[in-house]
Amino acid sequence: MNFVGSHILSVSQFDRPAIERVFEVADQLEPYAKRQRVTRVLEGAILGSMFFEPSTRTRVSFGCAFNLLGGEVRETTEMKSTSIAKGESFFDTARVLSGYSDVIVMRHEIEGSVAEFASASRVPVLNGGDGANEHPSQALLDLYTIRKEVAAHGKNIDNLRIALIGDLKYGRAVHSLCRLLSLYNNIEFILISPPELALPAHYIDGMRAAGHRVIESSELQSSIGKADILYVTRTQEERFPSPEEASKYKGLFRLNQSIYTEYCEPNTVIMHPLPRDSRGNANELDNDLNENPNLAIFRQTDNGVTIRMALFALILDVVNDVDKYARDVNWYTDKRFK
Amino acid sequence: MNFVGSHILSVSQFDRPAIERVFEVADQLEPYAKRQRVTRVLEGAILGSMFFEPSTRTRVSFGCAFNLLGGEVRETTEMKSTSIAKGESFFDTARVLSGYSDVIVMRHEIEGSVAEFASASRVPVLNGGDGANEHPSQALLDLYTIRKEVAAHGKNIDNLRIALIGDLKYGRAVHSLCRLLSLYNNIEFILISPPELALPAHYIDGMRAAGHRVIESSELQSSIGKADILYVTRTQEERFPSPEEASKYKGLFRLNQSIYTEYCEPNTVIMHPLPRDSRGNANELDNDLNENPNLAIFRQTDNGVTIRMALFALILDVVNDVDKYARDVNWYTDKRFK
Amino acid sequence: MNFVGSHILSVSQFDRPAIERVFEVADQLEPYAKRQRVTRVLEGAILGSMFFEPSTRTRVSFGCAFNLLGGEVRETTEMKSTSIAKGESFFDTARVLSGYSDVIVMRHEIEGSVAEFASASRVPVLNGGDGANEHPSQALLDLYTIRKEVAAHGKNIDNLRIALIGDLKYGRAVHSLCRLLSLYNNIEFILISPPELALPAHYIDGMRAAGHRVIESSELQSSIGKADILYVTRTQEERFPSPEEASKYKGLFRLNQSIYTEYCEPNTVIMHPLPRDSRGNANELDNDLNENPNLAIFRQTDNGVTIRMALFALILDVVNDVDKYARDVNWYTDKRFK
Repeated sequence: MNFVGSHILSVSQFDRPAIERVFEVADQLEPYAKRQRVTRVLEGAILGSMFFEPSTRTRVSFGCAFNLLGGEVRETTEMKSTSIAKGESFFDTARVLSGYSDVIVMRHEIEGSVAEFASASRVPVLNGGDGANEHPSQALLDLYTIRKEVAAHGKNIDNLRIALIGDLKYGRAVHSLCRLLSLYNNIEFILISPPELALPAHYIDGMRAAGHRVIESSELQSSIGKADILYVTRTQEERFPSPEEASKYKGLFRLNQSIYTEYCEPNTVIMHPLPRDSRGNANELDNDLNENPNLAIFRQTDNGVTIRMALFALILDVVNDVDKYARDVNWYTDKRFK
Repeated sequence: MNFVGSHILSVSQFDRPAIERVFEVADQLEPYAKRQRVTRVLEGAILGSMFFEPSTRTRVSFGCAFNLLGGEVRETTEMKSTSIAKGESFFDTARVLSGYSDVIVMRHEIEGSVAEFASASRVPVLNGGDGANEHPSQALLDLYTIRKEVAAHGKNIDNLRIALIGDLKYGRAVHSLCRLLSLYNNIEFILISPPELALPAHYIDGMRAAGHRVIESSELQSSIGKADILYVTRTQEERFPSPEEASKYKGLFRLNQSIYTEYCEPNTVIMHPLPRDSRGNANELDNDLNENPNLAIFRQTDNGVTIRMALFALILDVVNDVDKYARDVNWYTDKRFK
Repeated sequence: MNFVGSHILSVSQFDRPAIERVFEVADQLEPYAKRQRVTRVLEGAILGSMFFEPSTRTRVSFGCAFNLLGGEVRETTEMKSTSIAKGESFFDTARVLSGYSDVIVMRHEIEGSVAEFASASRVPVLNGGDGANEHPSQALLDLYTIRKEVAAHGKNIDNLRIALIGDLKYGRAVHSLCRLLSLYNNIEFILISPPELALPAHYIDGMRAAGHRVIESSELQSSIGKADILYVTRTQEERFPSPEEASKYKGLFRLNQSIYTEYCEPNTVIMHPLPRDSRGNANELDNDLNENPNLAIFRQTDNGVTIRMALFALILDVVNDVDKYARDVNWYTDKRFK
């Protein structure tokens, strides 16, 4: 895969060397993401941030990643009264808007819309989420987090044992992560969900065809004992026919510190694509886990900035220049990243 | 006209030397607009972007123009729950907000509102559109595009033959463009519209009084043969008494590649202030023109960034310093501007 | 008080030396706020601006202050469809968002919400207003304005005579200002309000206990003769049970030039936290005062930028580096600050 000038639309664009290249660049950029160093390598460049569906964290994460490389961000966060309402084609919108920036990140509720936009754009486009379809930077940051977390215990992604827990039917993040993990060797997937929210069969077939082990379960405690990673997900309420239907599945697999202590191996890493549902009837990850050093959910979201910096640096071909435009951070950053 | 510290509120502020000064500076800034060079001449300066009426492209175009000169942009895009609702006068709003930035661009739906704001502002104000009244940077970028497009064929604005097509009654862009063109010599205006949407008589009288030829027509094919420029416009639906009334006039003057080939001289330039209405019942400029090299509509919108950079540089008096703060672009920009 | 890395949540954090340290830094930063000098000391730093309640001037003032120190701003201005709607706890929101920036400014309609957010944030948080509770930067800019205005007449804050006029019951700005002034010596507070909108007794008790004189009045003309400062406030309509109830109190204490000339000492300074209600039934400060050189209301809002710059510089520990990253302004700024 050649990153320079490319769109990033789907995890299916990535083979294992491409993923490892992203991670290698992310490792290089980590001191900048963690405010130990400042780089101005993209000073003068502009990110067009088009969030046609509301988003706070993905939008801000991409924006910060671009700022941390020294670039500017011009944002659009709504579509009311826009030109599309006046009969403008997506082609025209993409041609016009792509004249204003050096790279675009776009979220849109319609599946495939970002790819359609990209096909008319004159600059590289990153998919920031197109409905239930793809959100490739999320999958990359999840895998990058797995790599970093297990590395701390002397392991790597090959031979990983990962429990995927919750709504595996509608969870876009889980689907994409499974596709990326399948590129590695000898993964054990422990799928824990109510039968109605099981991972769709074609994903399981694909994982098995690639030589991985897949175990299905509808019970939490008995299934998590051998996992290196617990990847807990939110019930994707908004994709269900009704909130009542969704609420039947909430709170089925609550994890808390006492379950963790009793059933998990030491150092089992807890992940979640966030937001976690902390309301009483869901309580996916209990607050008593907040002091558990293996709760990786905030390191996971922090890694999102690093991964997005890596994607920008690769696409805009500045990887080798980042350090040339660098200096140490000169302001207070003490409590920030532990 | 002295640009330094001036408000830009109306095309009527511009005489021919002033226009030519803007174009001269735009030519100088083009390498920066096209990402061949980066300048930081306005590093530390702040543009206050106040879009009290929603807009994506004008807002982003102004913001990018300021970023490309090295400045920062602070945006306000809504007026809900603002101080005006608490009884604040426009005078106070302008005094306060003009304390936060070095220059302001403002769009507001009420005619004359931007001029009223400017009269109380302590910093220069650019009109980004005040209702049906004025949008001076649009007229300047249109004229700049005409100049560049016909120059490629060895012509200039004097002696130009331009067909203005569509809704000439309500089109703010057309009105302003006619005023600017009238400052040049020996223009032939070919006005093609249904009689009900004809250019208002006082514009025509003014053009004739200035020594130009004006031809009126209600038929497309027979009228475009001698034009250097076809300037097509959208039916300004939102200014009609009802959508039904507007829809009577949609699709009357569709241009496509076969009409172009049969009726136009080679190299006739096609322009449009955008957005073009591409819905079936309008289809002002058919998609089969997209590969026609004389379709200038996206070069036109790109020129908008350059013209806005020129206005900022002139108003803030940094024209002679732009190159001092410059360096080459160091990131990928290959496909961007052909 | 140690500023470095601290949250700024309440005026009660400040003792007199802390206030004077803020003012000293503000004085140092004034040339940057007034566009005589540019500094890039925070180049590469990111302000997370979270305005969960709409605001134009406070939001833009904080954003400009950060830009004027060289930093970038990533804004969030709405809470529609955010993660909180998906059951996310405030703890999680704060942990995640605080990973994206170096410092956060937040406004939220719920009292205490900003402090709750701050307790989970990994970076310093500034309170930009939490409902009727606190807005500490407003109180600091008010006091800074008083100091500067009376200094021009050879006076200082000790021994000040200040008339507080209007809705003293609901006015958050007045409450906080009284708390800060009480840290000084020998203040005379002249409280002018209808009895129903009097300053709550515990404030008055506190002021008297601290050794200050407090005079209460319900009549304007007879009470303003000995004041150094007239601090006029808006009837806080939105905090009343009904608009009708609020409207009973509008327009009771209108100040205009002829009252000023007849009843005030020369050089009495007029302040207002803005917005002033200029509608006919309120007309708190008549427009005929706009040419009065002692009308300090726009210098007051300008000082807000300077004070916020000082807070950022102190919290992020760059006070001593500001001048190292500085140069003269190279663009037009003539009319800006008189």
